[in-house]
Amino acid sequence: MEAYFDNSATTRPFDEVIEYMTHVNRVAYGNPSSLHTKGIEAEKLIKTAREAIADTIGVSSGEIYFTSGGTESNNLAIRGYLAANPRNGKHIITTKIEHPAVMEVYKHLTENGYSADYIGVDGNGIINLQELADKIREDTALISVIFVNNEVGSVQPIEEIVKIKNSINPDTAIFVDAVQAYGKIKTLPVQLGIDMMSMSSHKIHGPKGTGALYVKKQKKIKPIIFGGGQESIIRSGTENVPGICGFGLAAKMITEKIEQNLKHVEKLKQLFIDRLTDIRNDFRIISPNNGLPYILNISFANVKAEVLVHHLEEKGIYASTGSACSSRKRIQSHVLEAMSVEQCYMEGSVRFSFSSLNTEEEVEYVVEAIKSILPRIQIKRGGRRVKR
Amino acid sequence: MEAYFDNSATTRPFDEVIEYMTHVNRVAYGNPSSLHTKGIEAEKLIKTAREAIADTIGVSSGEIYFTSGGTESNNLAIRGYLAANPRNGKHIITTKIEHPAVMEVYKHLTENGYSADYIGVDGNGIINLQELADKIREDTALISVIFVNNEVGSVQPIEEIVKIKNSINPDTAIFVDAVQAYGKIKTLPVQLGIDMMSMSSHKIHGPKGTGALYVKKQKKIKPIIFGGGQESIIRSGTENVPGICGFGLAAKMITEKIEQNLKHVEKLKQLFIDRLTDIRNDFRIISPNNGLPYILNISFANVKAEVLVHHLEEKGIYASTGSACSSRKRIQSHVLEAMSVEQCYMEGSVRFSFSSLNTEEEVEYVVEAIKSILPRIQIKRGGRRVKR
Repeated sequence: MEAYFDNSATTRPFDEVIEYMTHVNRVAYGNPSSLHTKGIEAEKLIKTAREAIADTIGVSSGEIYFTSGGTESNNLAIRGYLAANPRNGKHIITTKIEHPAVMEVYKHLTENGYSADYIGVDGNGIINLQELADKIREDTALISVIFVNNEVGSVQPIEEIVKIKNSINPDTAIFVDAVQAYGKIKTLPVQLGIDMMSMSSHKIHGPKGTGALYVKKQKKIKPIIFGGGQESIIRSGTENVPGICGFGLAAKMITEKIEQNLKHVEKLKQLFIDRLTDIRNDFRIISPNNGLPYILNISFANVKAEVLVHHLEEKGIYASTGSACSSRKRIQSHVLEAMSVEQCYMEGSVRFSFSSLNTEEEVEYVVEAIKSILPRIQIKRGGRRVKR
Repeated sequence: MEAYFDNSATTRPFDEVIEYMTHVNRVAYGNPSSLHTKGIEAEKLIKTAREAIADTIGVSSGEIYFTSGGTESNNLAIRGYLAANPRNGKHIITTKIEHPAVMEVYKHLTENGYSADYIGVDGNGIINLQELADKIREDTALISVIFVNNEVGSVQPIEEIVKIKNSINPDTAIFVDAVQAYGKIKTLPVQLGIDMMSMSSHKIHGPKGTGALYVKKQKKIKPIIFGGGQESIIRSGTENVPGICGFGLAAKMITEKIEQNLKHVEKLKQLFIDRLTDIRNDFRIISPNNGLPYILNISFANVKAEVLVHHLEEKGIYASTGSACSSRKRIQSHVLEAMSVEQCYMEGSVRFSFSSLNTEEEVEYVVEAIKSILPRIQIKRGGRRVKR
């Protein structure tokens, strides 16, 4: 049996998406910039996908720009906005639990004339709103907030953040990294009152290599990649037509079942916790209770997450140590650190991330697997493994 | 009958490439950054593709970085190199016939503290080597040259350019935009003596949305997109695994038949010219005789290229007015202008670009089509169309 519980790292593309992309590759392979029918056909497909994405978040299709993925969308939003609005100030704010695709951009900017503040979070991974209010200044150009944290699933109160921002400095722009939120909960920029929002295709059973950025009509951004002037000059380079088409279809499919999927995944998460509670009491749920149910971060005392992940994969179960993006670096998670997770639970944190494709049977299977693996890998206080 | 002669804009992916990508999407959908088997499997596939690309140009796989396409590769090479080597000077050189993905980067740089020289070309689209020698200075950080021009197919004498550069300033780096050359003629960076070279997948029957950049081991570049640190920190963002795999396969397939394909296409080009000469004498071949045979740019007197292209597509023939990238802008081609093409031939320039998939039958078909279309669309000196 196989059980893929690493859906926050990436998802298996829907069969319909794969089939659609194959079709586009075979038939509609034109360059959208070409004047002839093959080009116009490709351009129309992009238009359809753009409208599909726009529909899922209730905006106009002219506010959607396609990119190569979530990371590029984040880079484009932050750097593109600041480059286009140099008079709005050189101060920027974000949180202590951002994805590296925001953290590293901020680092780059602080090395290039910007000053940044990083807002702390509580034990549930929710940012300190008073601290945010205190940090917003007249020269704060931008606030960047991760909607759903990728490691623990905490959901930020975006509307409250916007209210606070507007009461102190309405000229400060707000960008939301919605890569882990999009397609799982409602992400409606107009209702939320935000200016920019990033989305990724491969997190919602679309193909890798494509993403999108929403930019409110009234806000200006500059490109970060220059060339032929595609995507209204904002993103040059021949469009990844099949990728964009696959993304559009996946977005439509997942949004249509967004509530149904959420209920399904809530059930899976609860089942996971219940079954685990039946068999063990030496674990700590790192994910907040009111977090996105798609992400369940659990830590087992005296267990190295890496070891558990390897034993799980031997049974065909795929889970993650922290986020995929930082798992290779073997450094302590900046998110768990910001949440002040106890040191003894830092090393044993494993992320199980669900999708609508997961089943209850798979959850039962993984808990059984954990039950049999833990005794073999748990480290005794003296440092030796418990042998049974 | 259909005849696709717009292969310099983009190509139809090989069937084997489409099938391979479908397989990767279905089975190897893991995130290469994940520690488990599904991640390692994806990482291995990228490694195989990287080695395949490296093999085709005779370099080590550690010198290949994957990007989202040719445009990003060009941006990364030029801006990434200059950012990493600020002490090498603020002067940069390129040619007057570059692709917008280089031209616009140079424009951006000149707006941000760099000074640039643009080397002119002769009627064959070959750069003036004396002018180049005269422009290289002590503070010339970088020279950027398009290997094969995308509009007319002129092939620059890269080795001679490198020799001249080395005799004047060996510290000046050389970047070659090989998007139209790669997979069609030998593009061997070590033999050519160049430091960086860009490649695109969708120009060689690979998928859209992926490309690569070769950077000589001894040369340092900085990233232009920041995040999770993929591609040795040079290009962050979850790798487009299926795209990279498809690119690797296409590169292997096309390189294996590079000479056979070249002979085939040479024959097609000659047949095209011969047949056309049989029926008309009022056209001018813009492409140089010794240019890459994959590109045949022809201009018909008193004909608007756009009109001809539209009439051709009615017969299922796809060709281009100038390059796809500038065709939508309806501005005069900067390449033809640099080549001092006579004004009367500027508006009638149509690019037929071949691939190994084209046939002699298709060439016969397109010439017959031109024969029947031209009398209907040619403008008489007085401005009226000739009616027959």
